Amino acid sequence: MSDESSPSRITNFGAGPSALPVSVLEEAAKGLLNFQGTGIGIAEISHRSSEFTAFVRNVEALIRRQLRVPPTHAVLFTQGGGSAQFSAVVMNMLARYRLLHPDVPTGDVTMDYVVTGSWSKKAAEEAERLGGGQVRIVTDARKHSVSGKAFDNIPPHSAYAFSKDPALIYYCENETVDGVEFSHDVASSSSFPYHLLPENTLSPLVADYSSSFMCRPIPRLGDHAIIYAGAQKNVGPAGLTILIVRQDCIVDVDAAVRCGAAPVPITLSYKTLFDSKSLYNTPSVLALYMTGLVLERMETMGGMEYYEALNKKKAEAVYEVVKVGSSRGVFKPKVKEGSESWMNVVFDVIGDGAEKRFLDGAAQRGMSGLKGHRSVGGIRVSLYNAITEEQTQQLVQYCHEFIGQETTA
Amino acid sequence: MSDESSPSRITNFGAGPSALPVSVLEEAAKGLLNFQGTGIGIAEISHRSSEFTAFVRNVEALIRRQLRVPPTHAVLFTQGGGSAQFSAVVMNMLARYRLLHPDVPTGDVTMDYVVTGSWSKKAAEEAERLGGGQVRIVTDARKHSVSGKAFDNIPPHSAYAFSKDPALIYYCENETVDGVEFSHDVASSSSFPYHLLPENTLSPLVADYSSSFMCRPIPRLGDHAIIYAGAQKNVGPAGLTILIVRQDCIVDVDAAVRCGAAPVPITLSYKTLFDSKSLYNTPSVLALYMTGLVLERMETMGGMEYYEALNKKKAEAVYEVVKVGSSRGVFKPKVKEGSESWMNVVFDVIGDGAEKRFLDGAAQRGMSGLKGHRSVGGIRVSLYNAITEEQTQQLVQYCHEFIGQETTA
Repeated sequence: MSDESSPSRITNFGAGPSALPVSVLEEAAKGLLNFQGTGIGIAEISHRSSEFTAFVRNVEALIRRQLRVPPTHAVLFTQGGGSAQFSAVVMNMLARYRLLHPDVPTGDVTMDYVVTGSWSKKAAEEAERLGGGQVRIVTDARKHSVSGKAFDNIPPHSAYAFSKDPALIYYCENETVDGVEFSHDVASSSSFPYHLLPENTLSPLVADYSSSFMCRPIPRLGDHAIIYAGAQKNVGPAGLTILIVRQDCIVDVDAAVRCGAAPVPITLSYKTLFDSKSLYNTPSVLALYMTGLVLERMETMGGMEYYEALNKKKAEAVYEVVKVGSSRGVFKPKVKEGSESWMNVVFDVIGDGAEKRFLDGAAQRGMSGLKGHRSVGGIRVSLYNAITEEQTQQLVQYCHEFIGQETTA
Repeated sequence: MSDESSPSRITNFGAGPSALPVSVLEEAAKGLLNFQGTGIGIAEISHRSSEFTAFVRNVEALIRRQLRVPPTHAVLFTQGGGSAQFSAVVMNMLARYRLLHPDVPTGDVTMDYVVTGSWSKKAAEEAERLGGGQVRIVTDARKHSVSGKAFDNIPPHSAYAFSKDPALIYYCENETVDGVEFSHDVASSSSFPYHLLPENTLSPLVADYSSSFMCRPIPRLGDHAIIYAGAQKNVGPAGLTILIVRQDCIVDVDAAVRCGAAPVPITLSYKTLFDSKSLYNTPSVLALYMTGLVLERMETMGGMEYYEALNKKKAEAVYEVVKVGSSRGVFKPKVKEGSESWMNVVFDVIGDGAEKRFLDGAAQRGMSGLKGHRSVGGIRVSLYNAITEEQTQQLVQYCHEFIGQETTA
């Protein structure tokens, strides 16, 4: 892992686009001039060439193996990021619902949204914009916060009230802005309440996994209709969106139009992606390439079990020092115990000008990207896969120093 | 220009993704590890950082200056390629029409498509899929071919019959598959018939410029409502779509819904892109970066005037040798004189096994990507900006040798 800490490089704790392994960057730099000995750079080679299509099939296989994706689910690649999927999941799942239930009036179609932070809130707003059904906020975590307005918790299971037969049930596994995440232990009271899902064999469960994709195994993966993620947190650069879609959710959207559904733009249709093996039109070649290199490296390192252990250790170390700072009146955690994200640790630095002193000190020590999202402020430490234990320890060490300085000053 | 012909590199005459200047690839390789001395690689840096947003503004400025984009038009960046724009142009232009004419029944709304090849045909099919108006094929070039079924010509001006007040008028400037292109001389009979456009001051003219973007100045740019292009032909890698949109076509799509238009997915709305300065969500950072490097280099080389002269020379050289081959019964041009593309030169090689001999001989000499599109076969020579005169001459030289071999055999 020593290859991550090249002396001229800054440690990037940013929330995404985020750090990538140096070994991958070096390999990619070579690939820009000559991809796999073809004599043509990766940014220049045809996406229909046998070399590139084989590469894409291998990226798919790497995801399948490491996440143990069952044969019931397809792995697809597209562009447009999570925001494009805010629309695509609604359009495809409404088309599916329409084919299953051609006679239900539009006003009676429900879409259940679990709102635990800024991103799931935005996703629900997009469903509202698009129309085609009633958007129901199954639970709004703000109502379960002490202030009544903060996204600082995962609500208890008693707070969920799913519709009887919704077109989709949506949640965001890890809220990048707010630092809130469902527990990985499905038996925990802050896990996603899979056991409360409507009793149908093919649950319409949709999960935004953008900022926790492949940081650890995905619990109950097979129960999901759609899992999607932008690559730019744990597995690659921006420009690639990865989808895991259960086959019954890959529907003929044009047939659904004849049953009353809204037309789906061709590149947002999962059937288009599936039928073309994710090569309907030219994909984001560079992003796919670098993601492939990251995934290969991840498998070599030990796959999901390795990253789960690593990421747990990193997160625990940072939460531990935040706790120490909190007991000394220097830091203040922003998220309720049991709801904390492994990927984005958020806290406030208390006192006049203290946040600026914290950030300046970090910058002097070569650590960047620690400013919280502009909508919530404070500090955010993003600990994606490429952040090493050593880098995490440097930050922890600095936090201890800072606590010392602030309390003796 | 000698930097293009590094000995281990193959000359890539592919139709896209396509060749990029070696100097740009080398610069990008460095940027992967350290972007502008920030100590963070370009694939890792925040798209909200001051360094990256300044870079994006400069990419915009480089396009504006070189194409002389008037202040009436915005330059926007997005993802999803031309195929996503097939849908987006329809949805945004229908929203605009709906706001201008809230009372026109949907059945009376017309969308005029000029079909001169495979891509404009596909675009018209997507408009048909999406509904929201009548798709009218203004002209179908196949009807003007000798066989009655080939996209081998630009129809005469007398063949166009535009609607009175269409929601959009669509054409594809250069047909990558078929090698057909509108004349650059607006006075020519095979230019786009701008003079026949409906007489309104703000024409709803939409052009797909994917494979001829910035290979030369764009004629009548200011008369266009929308010009769009994937970067992966002349100006960068795949994953970036560039839009030039007249301000009156950036409309409040949600207000249009209240007037009866279909909802537009948030990332396909031009207003979303415009309001966020193309940074609504994380863009395809690497593709934007490399495009910026290519555009900087293009400006240094002499901008559009330089590339116009260079590309003219390259195309003339290849058409010349095709003519020689044709007179000797070895080659057969596929496109009518006056309708030939500068960017994609298509021809057949005559005789049993001759096409394979041609391709094998080219491969032995380090030239690849010459196979025609699978739907039409034959040979296609793509001569995008990064292909040098020297590389073109190598190909021409080889064609002469091949003609010699075939005629003495």
